[in-house]
Parts: sequence; structure tokens; C-alpha cells
Amino acid sequence: MERARRPGPSVRTRVVEHKGHDEDAAEIAREDRLVTEEPLEIRVRVRGLEPRRAWVTMRTPGHDFELAAGWLVNEGLATPGSLDQVAYCTDADLDPEQEFNVVTVTLGAGAAEVPHRHAAASAGSSACGVCGKDSVTEALQVRSAAPWSGERPDADVVRRLPEALREHQDLFARTGGVHAAGLATAAGELLVVREDVGRHNAVDKVVGARVLAGDSPAAACLVLSGRVGFELVQKAAASGIGSIVAVGAPTSLAARLAGEAGIALWGFTSPGRSVNYC
Amino acid sequence: MERARRPGPSVRTRVVEHKGHDEDAAEIAREDRLVTEEPLEIRVRVRGLEPRRAWVTMRTPGHDFELAAGWLVNEGLATPGSLDQVAYCTDADLDPEQEFNVVTVTLGAGAAEVPHRHAAASAGSSACGVCGKDSVTEALQVRSAAPWSGERPDADVVRRLPEALREHQDLFARTGGVHAAGLATAAGELLVVREDVGRHNAVDKVVGARVLAGDSPAAACLVLSGRVGFELVQKAAASGIGSIVAVGAPTSLAARLAGEAGIALWGFTSPGRSVNYC
Repeated sequence: MERARRPGPSVRTRVVEHKGHDEDAAEIAREDRLVTEEPLEIRVRVRGLEPRRAWVTMRTPGHDFELAAGWLVNEGLATPGSLDQVAYCTDADLDPEQEFNVVTVTLGAGAAEVPHRHAAASAGSSACGVCGKDSVTEALQVRSAAPWSGERPDADVVRRLPEALREHQDLFARTGGVHAAGLATAAGELLVVREDVGRHNAVDKVVGARVLAGDSPAAACLVLSGRVGFELVQKAAASGIGSIVAVGAPTSLAARLAGEAGIALWGFTSPGRSVNYC
Repeated sequence: MERARRPGPSVRTRVVEHKGHDEDAAEIAREDRLVTEEPLEIRVRVRGLEPRRAWVTMRTPGHDFELAAGWLVNEGLATPGSLDQVAYCTDADLDPEQEFNVVTVTLGAGAAEVPHRHAAASAGSSACGVCGKDSVTEALQVRSAAPWSGERPDADVVRRLPEALREHQDLFARTGGVHAAGLATAAGELLVVREDVGRHNAVDKVVGARVLAGDSPAAACLVLSGRVGFELVQKAAASGIGSIVAVGAPTSLAARLAGEAGIALWGFTSPGRSVNYC
């Protein structure tokens, strides 16, 4: 059987760069690197049942198993202990080109009903006022989140974290088109950093990396190269993270949820500045 | 009946800003503005049938009807001519707090089957190798896109477009947490600009603004304040847009699709520079 070429995190391309202003403008034909974007389909198999499609995301290939595992944990669809196996799908009917774009996660018996409920929830085919009400409410649902009982980073540590993250953003340095997330201790030590074209995926990958290594996803700090939306705070809350330190701005709902979940939230963070929202 | 307070595009909050380094660090308590993030549920009613939920997105309130209309057109689920009515949902069962978070679009008879097919497609509950295969393929599907036959902006116009966009980014100036999209002529005249916490939403809003005003969504240029992913090129192709001019980087799949769809793609655009990818 023909094997698919495994896609790398970036691809080469030819570009024409235009530099300078009007009369002084110059055209330079050169090679450039683009961050790779490919779909990843996550399927969930509960022992004894056929695998079911749970989600499709556009992601940067690499650390796919971490992405799948971290997504399930961050969405509250699996506990770290319920993950039995993560593998690329070997279904004979699968287009060989998509071989590395489909990951199947096998869960232990304890998680039997969860993926099905999730699949049903995203179906979205109900009449006005019945399931419809559930869907807005569902979008705002906060998954179980114990208030953080560990140490929090002080303001000096907070201001240093984005620079520490940046040192690991190799793909960003090459392509300029990718976000990063990191997990760090309260003292500012980075435990894991991952990059992805989707900022939500980067967060799923760092949590998945911890989980698949047998470590707890609960860390003192989640460090983000971009902005902080509601869904990223949901993920942090689901994984028991104590503080979020972001280079960009938080949204209204992100700040509200962080406050409710007992998560310290920092935005606009650079070596000389940081803004604490709760 | 109690009416919900209509949410504005930004909210006030109290923050503590930390400035300076280590020993010189100062704490300033002040007021700040956060971009509003709220869920929007889009329901589609085909004449004679009950409305069905088609999608939920986290968005910045404002121009909600444009967002709903533009999303349907950009996703290939409706044509501009099939949009009969767009309104906030008045279902009595709806939580009053969510009154301005649910929009119902009524389509003419011509579009009867489309929203249902879409709802089924996102259900994602099929066994490995059957619907699963469709889902990765579906993510990569290119909707009808006629090659652009109008004028294209020259490189000088391209380099000026992000600055012109920036002049309309009022919400960004206040919150720093929001993306913008604009439609422009080949001569660089901006036709419409919209801001949203989600960059895909901003693109749906500009297309919806044109459609609801009775204008064609097909424009020479789509101007973007951020990066260009595959889905944004899909939307541009569906609306017949000729060129994409972005401040940020494109992805591999965005560049490939732009090439296939005959869309000129510019990234890393500033007054002194722009990179042409196809």
C-alpha cells in the first residue's frame, strides 16, 4: 500500500517581495517558508464500540497525538486516566493522502458515554427554543474547575514569561504565522512549549504533552503568545491551571470566567509591562 | 416581559497595571476596556419549516444580522438572493439574557435542503472510514469560485490598504483585542470595514454588510488585519473576491487554495513592504 508523505511543520514556497515606496519600490523573487495547515480529524473509540468522529480542526502537523489527547481532556470529554491508546487511523478506506490527518483515541470503559453526547451536541438540528437554548448555554458552560491551590507567579516572573516562550518559538521565527503556548511553574520554569497555526490547538498540545508523559496537566502558568478568549480560559480551568499570562488582550468573557474560576489573568505582557485582570 | 440589555462592543473593567522592571516596578490601578465576547447562535428557517440551529460562534456583538447573512453566503449555504429575513429570535422559551445572542435567518424556497445538510455534516457521529473520510475531505472542500475577472490592485495600492483599514479600527484602538476585515476596490477605496474578536466573523460581517445593503459581495480586495488561514480563502472564493491583502502571514493551505481559485494573495503588508504568494 502506498504510504502518505508525512507533512512537516512548514513548507517552502516561491514569493515576490515588494519593498520600499512608490518610485523606490523593488521586487525581489525569493524562497519563503509557510506554516503548514492541514485538517486533523479526531476519532474516539470506546472499548467494544466502533470509533466515532468527534472533531475536525485545521492544525499544524506534529504532536498530533498530544493535540488529540489534550483536546479531549481540555474539553472535559476524557480524563487523563481514561486514555488507553492514541494512534493514526489505519482504516483501509481512508484516502492515503489523509493517513496522517486522522487520529483515533481509545478510551477505557469509564468514559463510555461522553464522546457520543458531544457528537450529539454539535449536531445542531433542533427546533427553535428547545435544543437551541441549550446551544448558547452550552457554549458558555464551565467545566469542572477546582480553584487553584498552588503557588502563583509574582509580577516579575510574569513579565519574563513571554520572552522565555519566544526563545522556543522556532516555527514562528521561520514562518511568522503561528501561535505558541507553554506551561510553566510559578518560578517561571517552562515545562513544555508547542506551536500551532491555531492558538487553541497549541494549548491542547501542551496539555496533551503533559498527559501523555504521565504528568498532571495542572500547572501554575499557561503562557500564550496571543490573545485570551473565553474558550482558552475554559481549557485552562478544565486542566486545573492557576494563572494565564498572555502577550495579547483578554476578552470580556475570558476575564469574567477567569474571575469565576479563580484563575489569575495577565494580558499585554512584555518585559516592561503586564496588566492584571483578575 | 423583561428585555435583555443589548451588549455593546466593549466593556469597562478595573485592572492593575505593572510597569517597569524589578526594583523600579510600579503598580497602577486604573480602568480598562475589554472587547466584548458573546456567543451568537444562527438559526435558519426555510419557508414552511421550523427553524434549525446551524451554528454557534463566539463573536463581538454588533452587526449580528450581517454576521449571520455573511456566514451563510460565505459557507455556500445561501445565495444573497435567497435571504428573505434576518431577525433576533423571539422564541418565548429563550432565556431573556440570550435574546440578542440568537439570530434567525429566513430563506426563500430555493435553498430548502442546504441548512439541513450542513447540520448533518457537523454531527460527526459516523463510524471510521465511512463518514469519517468525508469529514477531512469536507474540511478541504472548495466551494464554487469563478476566477476573478475584474481589476487587481497594484503593489502600491496593496501596501497602503492596511493603513487605510487601521484608520477604521476604533474598537482595536480602545481594546487591543480585536481583528478587522475590509472590502476595497482595486483603486484602494474601502467599501466597508468591520471588527470582531474572531477574524472569521469580521470577514463574514463585511460580506453580510454588502449583501444586506443589496450590493454584490464580490469585491476586488479583502483586507485583513491578521493572518490568512485556509478558511478565510474559502470564504473569499465563495464570495467572488479577487485579491486578499493581509497584515499577517498566510498558511500553506491558504496559499495553495488561493492559487487554485485564482485569488491574488499578499501577506506581511505594511507601507514599506508586501509579499506576494500567488
